[in-house]
Amino acid sequence: MAKISAVSPLAPKAFPDLPAVEGVTFATIAAGVRYQGRDDVMLACMSPGTAIAGVFTTSATRAAPVLDCQAKLGGDSGSAAAFLVNSGNANAFTGRNGDDAVGAITLATANACNIPQERVFTSSTGVIGEPLPFDRITAHLKTLSDIQDAKGIAAAARAIMTTDTFPKGASATVDIAGRAVTIAGIAKGSGMIAPDMATMLVYIFTDAKIPQAELQAMVSGHNASTFNCITVDSDTSTSDTLLVAATGASGVDVSGDLAFSDALHGVMLDLAHQVVRDGEGATKFVEINVTGAKTDTDAKTHALSVANSPLVKTAIAGEDPNWGRVVMAVGKSGAAADRDLLSIRFGDVIVAEKGWVSPGYDEAQAAAHMKGQELFIGVDIGLGDGRATVWTCDLTHGYIDINADYRS
Amino acid sequence: MAKISAVSPLAPKAFPDLPAVEGVTFATIAAGVRYQGRDDVMLACMSPGTAIAGVFTTSATRAAPVLDCQAKLGGDSGSAAAFLVNSGNANAFTGRNGDDAVGAITLATANACNIPQERVFTSSTGVIGEPLPFDRITAHLKTLSDIQDAKGIAAAARAIMTTDTFPKGASATVDIAGRAVTIAGIAKGSGMIAPDMATMLVYIFTDAKIPQAELQAMVSGHNASTFNCITVDSDTSTSDTLLVAATGASGVDVSGDLAFSDALHGVMLDLAHQVVRDGEGATKFVEINVTGAKTDTDAKTHALSVANSPLVKTAIAGEDPNWGRVVMAVGKSGAAADRDLLSIRFGDVIVAEKGWVSPGYDEAQAAAHMKGQELFIGVDIGLGDGRATVWTCDLTHGYIDINADYRS
Repeated sequence: MAKISAVSPLAPKAFPDLPAVEGVTFATIAAGVRYQGRDDVMLACMSPGTAIAGVFTTSATRAAPVLDCQAKLGGDSGSAAAFLVNSGNANAFTGRNGDDAVGAITLATANACNIPQERVFTSSTGVIGEPLPFDRITAHLKTLSDIQDAKGIAAAARAIMTTDTFPKGASATVDIAGRAVTIAGIAKGSGMIAPDMATMLVYIFTDAKIPQAELQAMVSGHNASTFNCITVDSDTSTSDTLLVAATGASGVDVSGDLAFSDALHGVMLDLAHQVVRDGEGATKFVEINVTGAKTDTDAKTHALSVANSPLVKTAIAGEDPNWGRVVMAVGKSGAAADRDLLSIRFGDVIVAEKGWVSPGYDEAQAAAHMKGQELFIGVDIGLGDGRATVWTCDLTHGYIDINADYRS
Repeated sequence: MAKISAVSPLAPKAFPDLPAVEGVTFATIAAGVRYQGRDDVMLACMSPGTAIAGVFTTSATRAAPVLDCQAKLGGDSGSAAAFLVNSGNANAFTGRNGDDAVGAITLATANACNIPQERVFTSSTGVIGEPLPFDRITAHLKTLSDIQDAKGIAAAARAIMTTDTFPKGASATVDIAGRAVTIAGIAKGSGMIAPDMATMLVYIFTDAKIPQAELQAMVSGHNASTFNCITVDSDTSTSDTLLVAATGASGVDVSGDLAFSDALHGVMLDLAHQVVRDGEGATKFVEINVTGAKTDTDAKTHALSVANSPLVKTAIAGEDPNWGRVVMAVGKSGAAADRDLLSIRFGDVIVAEKGWVSPGYDEAQAAAHMKGQELFIGVDIGLGDGRATVWTCDLTHGYIDINADYRS
């Protein structure tokens, strides 16, 4: 594993002060799954009546814990529930042993917390292909259950880190008819999957009261414009997991409430941006905004093609307003485009219009924009009303350093 | 433009001794389109009766010369023909000026060679978005026509280079019923598109006699298993062009002749491999072989997903037999796969079988294979009979050096 310990230059100044969420408690422990000298397992417990929604990797080689979570979504919301997460080992591509480990962990968690096994959701992140030493985890479950703490979310954010250079958290409080609803979430991830030690995991908690089906629809919808709109390296983990738990403990029914939906979207987007800001080797945070595509789907295809292009990403690393590479990336995306209708902006600078360099283009202005840490690339396709925004980072020597290093 | 002048470690020892092809002559000249002190324009002239086939980039933002070539394919084969190629400027994303430049160049070539304008095929490679100073080219066409030389192919291979670190050539001679047919080709390319100075251009010449429609079908078919099976960085040029000219001057009819078809395929594959061997920053040439997919199309999707994965490519650069990343890349490809049926080989070493690390796996053996310059990754999907082979290179600091450098 690469030892790149410097914090990303794009990191927030500090971990936010996350509010407690009624009905949710946390505990972490150093179980020694792989890492030594740090907490590597976290248990979050939710009160009875908690609705749980989730979104998972679309990989055809999904890890065992992901398959288990997917099977449990939409089940009974009556009893209490738990999330059990370990870092250091992904329990991915481990054959039948993977399923056995999930079974052992969820059973031990269910017993320790006195809840049904179907209400235990587990995630693992870390090396692929090595059997998960699940006994190191199950040995600590009684303790983890005993030391639950409503204020433990910051420690939980640290326990799930792998190659992350900073813990990620975000929160929102919504006033609904004079009563407060709280949302707090944590995430880890620094490459879609990376030096056998990364993946994206997100856990969001709220005391809002909402039926599971409605929560699931809301989370799936928001996911399309948040976590599904970020990319570090175009690689997709076998373990990506987003779980949202709504305990209902505030007693405030948020069904159909747009303020709650917006607040949840805001927390998801904040966490998604933090994952990009911790992109391996990243030195620039880049928003890519596509307008004028034939459809929204086309716009997203174009935007992701630009965001994933190694040539665009290396140009950004070089602070080069290389709009020719943006043209190339739009052209190769497969979505509809007309060379002679394209317009491209870097920041506020219009660099190309209607298929050619803009008459008033001043490269020095565009180059000045590229020197910043927060960049904007705008592409207008000129064909329709489709639009999409995605976020990415640059491709640097740091990415190669982290990922070309031998695992051992 | 990056000044990375060292020759790729994967380059052939020397440019091959290419045979003359009856009915084809060449000339090159230093026109100063952008580069100074080197030839940057080449003119190839073919005798009357030459059949011309081509394959081009699928980019939606194709450059003007590509669109012009595509429109001319399949036209009259009676009169003589010419290829006119410049390096230094791609004449891409140049609006109406691009079309005007193509018109001026093809007209001047037609006049100099005394052939119809519809028989002049032109390509441009180099910076995007800058108007092509076509007068620098047209000024030299009379000279280029006057100094045509049957032995000029090696100089032509050099004149079309941009960021290439070595010129690329390949040839074959086929004996058909006691009579010789010759094939000789040249190529340039070192990234699918790269520091505004790359793209893939290929010109192949033969004295075989073959109807245009049959030649086109043969070239399109072979392209699918040669140039369409290589990738350096997953980025697609706006200018990629493959043109094949069959002069018929040998008098040998190769219609339906498998030996000729195989020989042409061999020349195309050789040139395709050379493009990968000149991949920007490449230190490893990698063959990725997928078997057992549901269909051949699925196999190619899996193979390209592995070949284009930044995490697989950085692992190769790090000489790490990181099969977990291969699993990841298969899983994300979108084609059918079953985690528990996958098998993976590095060289002769079976690293994973049926969804888990192989019982007899010795990582030291796999690591030893990764230290070579020519690597093999085999993936068996375990679902059917679909198969595909693609070729790629590793992703190194050299790639970042070349592409993160500011253009000016």
